[in-house]
Amino acid sequence: MVVRTGARLRAAVLGTGLIGGSVLLRLHAAGLDVIGWDPDEATRRQARSLGVPMADLLADAVADRAVVFLGGPLPTLPATLVEVAALTGEDCLLTDVGSTKAQLAAFAAAQGLTHRFVPGHPMAGTDRAGLTAAVPELFTGAAWVLCPAPDGLAAFRRLVALITEVFAARVVPMAADRHDAVVALASHVPHLLAGALAGAAERSSLRDAVLTLAAGSFRDGTRVAGTPPQRTTNMLRGNRDEVVAALAEVAGYLDELSAALRADEPDLLTARYAEAAAARQALAGRRYDEQIRSFPATGEPADEVAWLSALGAAGGHLSGCRTAGETVSYVAHRPQSD
Amino acid sequence: MVVRTGARLRAAVLGTGLIGGSVLLRLHAAGLDVIGWDPDEATRRQARSLGVPMADLLADAVADRAVVFLGGPLPTLPATLVEVAALTGEDCLLTDVGSTKAQLAAFAAAQGLTHRFVPGHPMAGTDRAGLTAAVPELFTGAAWVLCPAPDGLAAFRRLVALITEVFAARVVPMAADRHDAVVALASHVPHLLAGALAGAAERSSLRDAVLTLAAGSFRDGTRVAGTPPQRTTNMLRGNRDEVVAALAEVAGYLDELSAALRADEPDLLTARYAEAAAARQALAGRRYDEQIRSFPATGEPADEVAWLSALGAAGGHLSGCRTAGETVSYVAHRPQSD
Repeated sequence: MVVRTGARLRAAVLGTGLIGGSVLLRLHAAGLDVIGWDPDEATRRQARSLGVPMADLLADAVADRAVVFLGGPLPTLPATLVEVAALTGEDCLLTDVGSTKAQLAAFAAAQGLTHRFVPGHPMAGTDRAGLTAAVPELFTGAAWVLCPAPDGLAAFRRLVALITEVFAARVVPMAADRHDAVVALASHVPHLLAGALAGAAERSSLRDAVLTLAAGSFRDGTRVAGTPPQRTTNMLRGNRDEVVAALAEVAGYLDELSAALRADEPDLLTARYAEAAAARQALAGRRYDEQIRSFPATGEPADEVAWLSALGAAGGHLSGCRTAGETVSYVAHRPQSD
Repeated sequence: MVVRTGARLRAAVLGTGLIGGSVLLRLHAAGLDVIGWDPDEATRRQARSLGVPMADLLADAVADRAVVFLGGPLPTLPATLVEVAALTGEDCLLTDVGSTKAQLAAFAAAQGLTHRFVPGHPMAGTDRAGLTAAVPELFTGAAWVLCPAPDGLAAFRRLVALITEVFAARVVPMAADRHDAVVALASHVPHLLAGALAGAAERSSLRDAVLTLAAGSFRDGTRVAGTPPQRTTNMLRGNRDEVVAALAEVAGYLDELSAALRADEPDLLTARYAEAAAARQALAGRRYDEQIRSFPATGEPADEVAWLSALGAAGGHLSGCRTAGETVSYVAHRPQSD
C-alpha cells in the first residue's frame, strides 16, 4: 500500500485550480505530506488560508517528493513535465490531470519518461473554475483514467493504489489514444452541443422568451456552455481530430432523427429514440462483477497491459492494487452485459 | 378570485399521466372539488388509491364542471376537446396541457371555441411518465404558458387567477404560434440533441467505455433521451416546422464552432463560447421588476392582448389576476435587461 506505510508519502500538486486544487485538498485531508504550487500568487495565498502548504517556487514544491501531480492549463503540461522531470529523481512518480492524453503521452515517450510518468485524467468537474470551486471529495466515485505503459507498470501500480485509496475513485485503465476517442464522445462533443444550443438561443430573436420557457432539457443541455470559454477551447484543441470524428457520428444520428421528423415517419423516429434510450438505461442501471486478478510482479508486461486495456475497453474499472512479494493483484469491476 | 369563493370550484382533469396527474393531485391537495378521468383502468385505480375521485366515464367526469383540464397524448387532444365541449355548458372553462399549441389553437378556433378554450402548456416534467411519476408540486415556480385570444379574455383571466393561486406557477402569456417557435428552441431541439448524442453513443464501437467515462456533460446532455420515445415523437411531430427551423439555427452555430476548431482558430472558438456562456449567465441571474397593470374589464380586447403578448415576448410572466368591479388587474414581472 502506498499510503499506509510508516512514513507519510511526500506529494506535490502543481497548478491548483478546480482539478489540481481538489487533488491537493484531498491529499491534504487524507494526511499526506503534500505541498502545492500555482503560478498565481492569489491562488497560493488562498490555499494557505485553507491551511495547505504552498511553495512560491515550483522547484521548492517538487524537491524530494515521491509523487507529483501536474495540473494547470492543458497547453502548459508538456513544458511543466520537462521541468519537473529535470528537478526530480528517477524514483519520483509523475502524473497529470489533463483532459486529453495522446499528445502528452507521445511527448512523454519522446522524452524517455514513460517509466515514471503515468498520463491521468480524473473525470470530474463543475462548470466553475479555480481553487474556490475545488472540493476534496470531487473525485469520490468518479472515473479516473490512467494510461499503463509496458515499461511503466511499476509506476502505474503505485498510482492505482494511491488513487483508489486516497480518492475513492474508480481507476479506468486505458491507452492514451483510446481515452481521447472515448472522451470525444463522452465529454467533448457534449460541450460542442451545449455551446451550439446556448449560442443559438443567445443569438435568437426569441432569446428572452426562450430563457423564460427554458425547460429542464434546455437547462441540462446547455449547462457546460457556462464553463470558462478558454478552458473549453483548450480541451477541444487538445483532442481536435477525435472530436471532429465523434461529432460526425453524432451529426449523423441527428440527421437521421431530423430526416424521420421531416418525412413524418413516426415509427422510425420512435425507433431511433428507443435506441438512444437504451444508452440512458445502461447508464442508470449498470451492475458490475468483481474479480481479483493477479500477475507476477516481474512478469511479461504485455500480458498485464493487454488485460488492463481490455478491462477499460469493456467499461470496467479498478478499485485497488496491491503488490505482495512477487505478486501484483488488482481488484477489478467489469460491467455485466446490459 | 376563482378559488376563494364560498362554493368550492368544481374541476375535472382528463388524462392523468405525468402532467395531467400532477394537475389533478395539486387541485385535490388545494381542496377543490375535483374529479379525474383516464382511459386506462389501472391509472384510475391508482388515482383512487391516492384518495382522488375518478370517473369511469369521461362524460361523468365533466358533468357540471366549471373548469376542465385536457391532458393525455397530444394527438388525442382535438377529439377530446370536441367531445368535452359538447358535454359541457358555455360557461365551462376549458384548457389543455399539451406541449405544442398552434395546431390545437387553430382547431379550437375552427370549432368556434376560443371564447372558452384557453390553450395552455405547463413547462415542467421529468423523463419518467405516468401517474406514478406525478407530484402535486410539479408546477411550483414553473412557467405555464396560456394563450390569450381577443374573444376569450374572460376565460383567460379566470385561468390566470386559478393557476397562479393553486399551482404557484408563473403564467407566461403568449400567442400559440409564438409559443411553438419558442419551445422549439427551449425544449424540442434539446430533445433532438440529446437523442443524437445518446443514440451515437449506443451505436459506437466505444459504447461501453463511453458510458464508463460519461462526464456530467454527457449525463446532462442525454437526460431527456430517456424520455418515453412515443411521447418525444408526438411532441416533435406536433411542432415539426418550428423544430426544423430551430434545428437549422442550432446546427448553424454548431458548424461555426466546428469550423473554428478545424481551422484551429482558438480566439474565434473562445469568442463563440463566450457568446454562448452569456445565455447561461442570463438564465442563472435574471432579476424581475414587478408591476400592477389594470385594464377596463369590458375594454378593447386588442389592447390587453397586445400588452400580454409583449410581456411574454420580453420574457415576463404573471403571478396573479384579479377582477374587481369593472377593472381587471394583472401582477406582472418583467425581466430587467441583462
